[in-house]
Amino acid sequence: MSLTPFEHPFLSGLMGDAEIVPLFSAAADIAAMLRFETALAHAEAEHGVIPGDAAASIASALSEFAPDMDALANGVARDGVVIPEFVRQLRRTVGGAASENVHFGATSQDVIDTSLMLRLKAATGVLAGRLASAIAGFDALQARDGENALMGHTRMQAAIPITVADRVQSWRAPLDRSARRLAHFSAEGFAVQFGGAAGTLEKLGDKGADVRAAIARRLDLADRPQWHSQRDGLAEFAGILSLISGSLGKFGQDVALLAEVGGEIRLSGGGGSSAMPHKQNPVAAELLVSLARFNAVQLSAIHQSLVHEQERSGAAWTLEWLVLPQMVTATGVALSTAIRLLGQIDRLGRATHAG
Amino acid sequence: MSLTPFEHPFLSGLMGDAEIVPLFSAAADIAAMLRFETALAHAEAEHGVIPGDAAASIASALSEFAPDMDALANGVARDGVVIPEFVRQLRRTVGGAASENVHFGATSQDVIDTSLMLRLKAATGVLAGRLASAIAGFDALQARDGENALMGHTRMQAAIPITVADRVQSWRAPLDRSARRLAHFSAEGFAVQFGGAAGTLEKLGDKGADVRAAIARRLDLADRPQWHSQRDGLAEFAGILSLISGSLGKFGQDVALLAEVGGEIRLSGGGGSSAMPHKQNPVAAELLVSLARFNAVQLSAIHQSLVHEQERSGAAWTLEWLVLPQMVTATGVALSTAIRLLGQIDRLGRATHAG
Amino acid sequence: MSLTPFEHPFLSGLMGDAEIVPLFSAAADIAAMLRFETALAHAEAEHGVIPGDAAASIASALSEFAPDMDALANGVARDGVVIPEFVRQLRRTVGGAASENVHFGATSQDVIDTSLMLRLKAATGVLAGRLASAIAGFDALQARDGENALMGHTRMQAAIPITVADRVQSWRAPLDRSARRLAHFSAEGFAVQFGGAAGTLEKLGDKGADVRAAIARRLDLADRPQWHSQRDGLAEFAGILSLISGSLGKFGQDVALLAEVGGEIRLSGGGGSSAMPHKQNPVAAELLVSLARFNAVQLSAIHQSLVHEQERSGAAWTLEWLVLPQMVTATGVALSTAIRLLGQIDRLGRATHAG
Amino acid sequence: MSLTPFEHPFLSGLMGDAEIVPLFSAAADIAAMLRFETALAHAEAEHGVIPGDAAASIASALSEFAPDMDALANGVARDGVVIPEFVRQLRRTVGGAASENVHFGATSQDVIDTSLMLRLKAATGVLAGRLASAIAGFDALQARDGENALMGHTRMQAAIPITVADRVQSWRAPLDRSARRLAHFSAEGFAVQFGGAAGTLEKLGDKGADVRAAIARRLDLADRPQWHSQRDGLAEFAGILSLISGSLGKFGQDVALLAEVGGEIRLSGGGGSSAMPHKQNPVAAELLVSLARFNAVQLSAIHQSLVHEQERSGAAWTLEWLVLPQMVTATGVALSTAIRLLGQIDRLGRATHAG
Repeated sequence: MSLTPFEHPFLSGLMGDAEIVPLFSAAADIAAMLRFETALAHAEAEHGVIPGDAAASIASALSEFAPDMDALANGVARDGVVIPEFVRQLRRTVGGAASENVHFGATSQDVIDTSLMLRLKAATGVLAGRLASAIAGFDALQARDGENALMGHTRMQAAIPITVADRVQSWRAPLDRSARRLAHFSAEGFAVQFGGAAGTLEKLGDKGADVRAAIARRLDLADRPQWHSQRDGLAEFAGILSLISGSLGKFGQDVALLAEVGGEIRLSGGGGSSAMPHKQNPVAAELLVSLARFNAVQLSAIHQSLVHEQERSGAAWTLEWLVLPQMVTATGVALSTAIRLLGQIDRLGRATHAG
Repeated sequence: MSLTPFEHPFLSGLMGDAEIVPLFSAAADIAAMLRFETALAHAEAEHGVIPGDAAASIASALSEFAPDMDALANGVARDGVVIPEFVRQLRRTVGGAASENVHFGATSQDVIDTSLMLRLKAATGVLAGRLASAIAGFDALQARDGENALMGHTRMQAAIPITVADRVQSWRAPLDRSARRLAHFSAEGFAVQFGGAAGTLEKLGDKGADVRAAIARRLDLADRPQWHSQRDGLAEFAGILSLISGSLGKFGQDVALLAEVGGEIRLSGGGGSSAMPHKQNPVAAELLVSLARFNAVQLSAIHQSLVHEQERSGAAWTLEWLVLPQMVTATGVALSTAIRLLGQIDRLGRATHAG
Repeated sequence: MSLTPFEHPFLSGLMGDAEIVPLFSAAADIAAMLRFETALAHAEAEHGVIPGDAAASIASALSEFAPDMDALANGVARDGVVIPEFVRQLRRTVGGAASENVHFGATSQDVIDTSLMLRLKAATGVLAGRLASAIAGFDALQARDGENALMGHTRMQAAIPITVADRVQSWRAPLDRSARRLAHFSAEGFAVQFGGAAGTLEKLGDKGADVRAAIARRLDLADRPQWHSQRDGLAEFAGILSLISGSLGKFGQDVALLAEVGGEIRLSGGGGSSAMPHKQNPVAAELLVSLARFNAVQLSAIHQSLVHEQERSGAAWTLEWLVLPQMVTATGVALSTAIRLLGQIDRLGRATHAG
Repeated sequence: MSLTPFEHPFLSGLMGDAEIVPLFSAAADIAAMLRFETALAHAEAEHGVIPGDAAASIASALSEFAPDMDALANGVARDGVVIPEFVRQLRRTVGGAASENVHFGATSQDVIDTSLMLRLKAATGVLAGRLASAIAGFDALQARDGENALMGHTRMQAAIPITVADRVQSWRAPLDRSARRLAHFSAEGFAVQFGGAAGTLEKLGDKGADVRAAIARRLDLADRPQWHSQRDGLAEFAGILSLISGSLGKFGQDVALLAEVGGEIRLSGGGGSSAMPHKQNPVAAELLVSLARFNAVQLSAIHQSLVHEQERSGAAWTLEWLVLPQMVTATGVALSTAIRLLGQIDRLGRATHAG
């Protein structure tokens, strides 16, 4: 499959991401949805909503659940979401009386959005690690070449000399701030979604909030009243992704310009040309620009999805599915690419003093 | 692989496209690139640029070419494009003296952009067929229910009665115009790209234009001076895609509103809910809105790519790759979905006279 | 007023447009709306819908109409559109029995969209003229410097030498195509809007189409069945605008890169710096990039507006108002700026032969 | 002037903003730039960079500065920014020896970006106040109608009954979070920009950081090393704006849907129609949707501007100017409109018990 370079058999050589992409596989989604259903059963048993042995049966059965993928696809074709068919398969797997306790009080968005949160949280761990590596890479560049001279440029014209340290700071500081943005968001941002048919947990009586808190605790997510039709958290998260890729886009653009003007940068590992074997193309630098502009565009879709009708909008929700996994991946690829590009900079600027 | 619902194991039940998606597979790309390289060899032999038996050897060898996909991926990682490694594999496959004649005078963008044109042209054939089917579907709806009464709505308020025919016309007319747009574009829009290293066909002496025309003829593409850094044609094409999906989005939005208000539409085949089995969700209608908004966003990326630096921009070009295949697919899915939704409308409007 | 640089007291020095901006003034809008109401009265009299002397009275009175702007603003605040209050003022101006014949059978969108068409058509005349001038400028550049040598660049790296003519062609050809796009669109694209309350001209009996054709003839617009809820024509037009500004953005980006690398271009009239008086900034070149990216973004809004609910969507329609006048202006400014930049290129490339 | 409805003579009746728009006037910009130049002089005198009496002369003269606007416009046309001509006028106003001390060590972006910060901070005060009012409005609505019954809707279909309180919570909670986002951003986000020609304060020796801190203190802005080419802060701010307007867009969409279905909402003050005087159009509700989609689009431009070349990009910076003031205004108008719409809801939901 190849619609996106992130998963394309050969374009993924440049744009693949072995850690992020699998988080958005159907298998990872199903695994996370099973975690939700299992945690739900345990939490409901804990608070007396379903029998304790039903929860045990559910947990046991779901640990060996094997989906019928064709039937899931047919279910999505019919229902627009996978959950009705998924739950049907779960109930068949559990069997017996406990099957009626599966998914009790929950609905599609509870499972799908919570699964998304679990995986975005995992992805954020990866991104945060790469952010730290990139920042460390800039620190190392500064330590090695920081005192070198660089011609400062304003409006695409040579201005006055600066140091490499000055330029590196303009690449590093935004990433440092975005690392803090990501940490700040992570503290509360990955929250369980649990609301039932229309957000009111109408089947749980006065135990809704307690069950929700128990699910959150079991899944290591934040607890928050159901937020399915409130997509501001996701849009905030997507904004941080684009801040990261955008700042890396500036780094890439600057390196490409340095490479074009020549003299102030020595790059290794640039790409070759089928027509001109002598060339050293700043492939990684250009890719950073592409990914920055890609995320800057996609962010618009996520913000369009804020106009989410009533208790659930199929239209706005589906639009997120078309965009968000690729935004996360683009950010991951941008970070990996930046780290790689940092490793390709053999020298930046011009040495200013004899040894 | 699952980053996009168009290729996701179960979301593709709703959003897959068995005709369009394969056109963007690596296999289809490689097949089209082989068609270019073969046509190039024949055209160059025809005009005495390479020996005739070299062309025959190339054509024969490439007809059995089997790519080393891992090496292609590594090549893209290094070069940013697949062609240097692809040509290396081709030359190894051809072997002997003729291997030097493979890809003669061409460069990466010649192969990649011509391959894209071949596949966009094929996709356009699919889209045009579906457009005709959708228009026929609106005609059938009008023939059956056109005289029924419908409450006209302006600013989300009941206004005055109209007929179903009036409403159907507002859905059908833009598609009819877009069918003509697509036909108009197709007449000249799918053109061979052939320019060599920097667009000047510097290795072909005075035979460049003739060879290019011969390639175009063999590939059934329009002939045009190299256009690689002129992306206006692609952006115009992408605009037509979004006009189609956008007009279908209006259809979807209107159907969803009809379904919400009730009384004036009878839909079959709506989606079910895991919490509320009684519901009939207008899944197809909502999906049309999602796809319209998706393409409206993506179009921005394609227009950003018009700022294509110099003779080739890695940054702008790669951005297209991230977006265009999905825009084509979204348009294809929107058309299929509209056709399906038309089939689900059992009645529109209210009958106005006794029989 | 200053929210946009296009109208800002001092930023308009760079980004103003003395021909385009006035077409979107309230005065120009009112004048065009009066043309519609007058043409409507004449057309309805011509076909016996209203008395001939009523049309004469209306035409006479409206020729001296002076709007109460505060009341119009209050009307928009209340109604979301200006027409209810505008028509009230018109009727008061006309007075007597003929006042009842003012605006007969028409509604808000008929007046507002037709006014827009009249002004977009006028703007297109301006744009087409500038496109011709820009193309002529590229021709002159090619005639003067076309044989000069220029280093071809791919992926931001020197590739092989080309000629100035090669590069100029990549700037000129897309504009030439867009001039043809604009002409093709203009042939049918600027159409009268006339449909009445919900598009059905319900008050005109069997004379609706004739009256509409007569209005179109009087206003020198194309005749087309009411299209208010079908915004594909406007989106197509906006796409052409962005194709023009996008292609000019490539020109600007290339010039800025030439100026940065130096040696191959001599520019006059570049901008100064408050800190570095020696610099010659490629202000016009950079502005072309800004305007290209601006329109590439705005186009997304126009395509979002294709999802236009029912017979009239206040939400989608208002979104166009927020974006379209600025897109037209950005395109006009881009063309003027390109023409100016062409005049600032004192030399492009390097002379390749002694005289 | 009328290119944008926010400043249009009659469209501003609906979309004007008497508090926000003036913050982006040329007069407000000049006033803020004078504050910067005055604070700079004082700060430099404080740290012995310029003589104390020069600072006093500068402060005194600038307090009565009257700009030559035509010359400023000509300066922008030439230089791309206003500052070279602005400083020339300032120096002429100050006269004598002190004129050489005006703007010492500063450059265009220092003045322009700091002026922007001063005005965005003021705008944020207005927005924060309106956010609080809107939240209070939702609280009042909940207090009055919270126990009323409302039909919950998922996927545009009636689902199960909820209460008005449930729905109000989905409108209110995102605004509450955005109020906190805005406060969090405000704590550090409005920072002085001061870097000199290429960001290194090369003319201030070892006093750069002290002078910068002194300017920040005098202007009541945060102190931060120069950030001109690091636009992540502005993009983060723009993201919060779009989160606010987006969440209000959901409110507007929901109200428009309630108004269309009828029975569960009673609205006063809806707009009239020129053709159908009986209608009550949900003008304010629809406008909220328009503004949400507008900002969702514009945000893409701001994120494109993150790719800011080198020490200063004319292209990326100018793109912000074309977009950011309108985003702030759209957010302000959205908040005012939401507050107005809240006041128009005479009843929401259906009373569930007899008194």
